[in-house]
Amino acid sequence: MIVTVTLNAALDVTYDTPDVDWAGVNRVRHVHRRAGGKGVNVARVLAALGQDVVATGLAGGLTGRAIRDDLDAAGLAHGFTDVAAESRTTLAVSDGDRTALFNEPGPPVTADELRNFAKSYEKAVEGAAAVVISGSLPLGVPSDYYAVLAGIAARLGVPALVDADGEPLRHAPGGRPAIVKPNHEELARAVPGGTPAEGAQALRAEGAGAVVVSMGADGLLAVTPEGDFQARMPYAVRGNPTGAGDALVAGLALGLVEADGWPERLRRAAALGAAAVAAPVAGDFDRAVFADVHPKISVSTHP
Amino acid sequence: MIVTVTLNAALDVTYDTPDVDWAGVNRVRHVHRRAGGKGVNVARVLAALGQDVVATGLAGGLTGRAIRDDLDAAGLAHGFTDVAAESRTTLAVSDGDRTALFNEPGPPVTADELRNFAKSYEKAVEGAAAVVISGSLPLGVPSDYYAVLAGIAARLGVPALVDADGEPLRHAPGGRPAIVKPNHEELARAVPGGTPAEGAQALRAEGAGAVVVSMGADGLLAVTPEGDFQARMPYAVRGNPTGAGDALVAGLALGLVEADGWPERLRRAAALGAAAVAAPVAGDFDRAVFADVHPKISVSTHP
Repeated sequence: MIVTVTLNAALDVTYDTPDVDWAGVNRVRHVHRRAGGKGVNVARVLAALGQDVVATGLAGGLTGRAIRDDLDAAGLAHGFTDVAAESRTTLAVSDGDRTALFNEPGPPVTADELRNFAKSYEKAVEGAAAVVISGSLPLGVPSDYYAVLAGIAARLGVPALVDADGEPLRHAPGGRPAIVKPNHEELARAVPGGTPAEGAQALRAEGAGAVVVSMGADGLLAVTPEGDFQARMPYAVRGNPTGAGDALVAGLALGLVEADGWPERLRRAAALGAAAVAAPVAGDFDRAVFADVHPKISVSTHP
Repeated sequence: MIVTVTLNAALDVTYDTPDVDWAGVNRVRHVHRRAGGKGVNVARVLAALGQDVVATGLAGGLTGRAIRDDLDAAGLAHGFTDVAAESRTTLAVSDGDRTALFNEPGPPVTADELRNFAKSYEKAVEGAAAVVISGSLPLGVPSDYYAVLAGIAARLGVPALVDADGEPLRHAPGGRPAIVKPNHEELARAVPGGTPAEGAQALRAEGAGAVVVSMGADGLLAVTPEGDFQARMPYAVRGNPTGAGDALVAGLALGLVEADGWPERLRRAAALGAAAVAAPVAGDFDRAVFADVHPKISVSTHP
C-alpha cells in the first residue's frame, strides 16, 4: 500500500468555451469536474499501474464532498480528514488556443484539524510500503509540516517522497525523507546559486536520502547514495505538462516499493512523466507513449 | 406571501483577481459564492423590503445544496424541487477593469422532475398573493412552460408576473399573466418591427394583462388596462446593471400585492432598479439611492 498526502486537495474544473470574450458573457459548452491536487494525481497514476494506493489529506465543505464523490466514482481508495472550511476549486478556462488557470486559495486549517490529520496519517503510514507527500500547504499549516510528516514515516521505517516548493521544500530534508523531488526552478529558488547538482547535494547534506530534479524535456538529475545519475529523453513529447510531475513522482514511488536500482527507477519515472504530457488530463498518462519512450531513455552517471 | 420561481437557479461565484493573465496561472484573491438566478434575486429584494416571500424552482446536486445552504444562511425561505443533475454555476472573473462572465449550461430536467415541481408549485400558489416567474429554462423544460405556470396561477386567481426572453417570453401571454416584463431588446426580439409600445400592445393582445418594458436609463414604458405610462429617470445611476431588472421586477410584484395605481407602481419599480445598479451584488439595492431617486421619477401618460 502506498499512501499519498494532499493537504490542499482541489476540485479541478475545466470550462470549454470557444471564442472567449474576456470582457463579456460566455456560454460554457462543456464543464468537466475532477478531484485534483498533486497527491490525488499521483494516486491516480499509481492505481492505473495496478498499485494498492490510498489518497489522504484534508478536504472540507461541499467542494470536499465533491472531491470524495469523484474519487468514489473513479474507484480510488481515499481517507481524507475533514476540515470545516471549503476545499479549493481550480478552474481552467480554455478557448482552444489559450488556457487561463484560476487557483482559489485553500481552506484555512485549524490546529485541531491538523491534529486529527496527524493521527490518521500515522495510522495509515504504519502499514504502508511508501508515502508520497505533494503540493502546496493550506493556510494554518506550518511551513515545516512536510518535514514533520516525513519524520513520522522515517520513525516507522517507511520511505517518504516529498514533492514541494518554497519553504516546505526548504524544510523537507529535516524529516529525512527517502526522496525529495523539486523541479529545477523550485530547486534554484530553494538553494540559490550553483548548479542543479550542487543544489541537490545541499538538500542531501541536510537530510534527504536522495534528490531527484526534474528538468522538463531535459530529463532527470538524481543525486543518490549510489551516486549521481542523469536520465535523458530521446525526444520531446508535445501536449499538456500539467500533471507530468505527478506521474514522474508516481514512478519514483513505484521505485521505492519495488526496490529497483536507480537507473531503472529514473527511466520509468521519466517515461511516465513524458507519457503524462501526452494525456490531456492531469493524473492520466498515455500507455503507448510510455511503451515507446521507456526503452529509449538513456541513464548515465553524471559527470 | 409572494412566490418566486427560478427553474434555472445558479450558484453565482465571483473571482477577484488583480492583473488577470488570460493565458497563464492566476491566484484568486477572494472568492464569493452566493445563491443566484433571477427569481432568487427578486426574492432577496422582496425580503429586504419586508415582504413574506418564498423562493422556489429546481435545484440539483452539490451545487443545488450550496444554493439552499446559502439561502438558509441569508434567512430566505425556499422550497426548491430536487433534480438529479447538477445545478449550474455562473462565474464572474473581475480584474477591476474588465469582467468576464461564464455561464454553465443548466441541468437537464426529466419529465418526472417537472411533474414534481408542478405539484409543489400549485400548492405554493394556492395561498399566495402573487407569483414571479423569471429567467431561463433548463434543458428538458418546454418553451411554453411559463405560460403553463402563469395559467395555473390565473386559474387560482393569483396574479403572475413573467420576466423572460426568447420563446418563453413569446409564449408567456398565452397563460394570461398579470404582467409580462421584457426589456426593450427582449421585446424587439419577441415582436420584431414597430415601436416598443406596439410590441407591448401585441403581447397584451395575446393575453398579457399589462406589459412593462424596461429601457435602462430611459426608464419604463407600461402598456396597461388603465392606459399607457412612461416613467422617466431624473439622472443615470452608475454601477453594476446585473440584477437591476430583478429589483425592478420585485417592485412590480410589490405593486401587485399592494394594489397601488400604475404611476406609483412604476415609480417604485424604476427606483428599485436604479438603486440596484448602485449596489455591487445582484439581489441587493442601495437604500439611499432609492430614497433619493424615488420622488424624482416622473410618470406621464404615454402619447
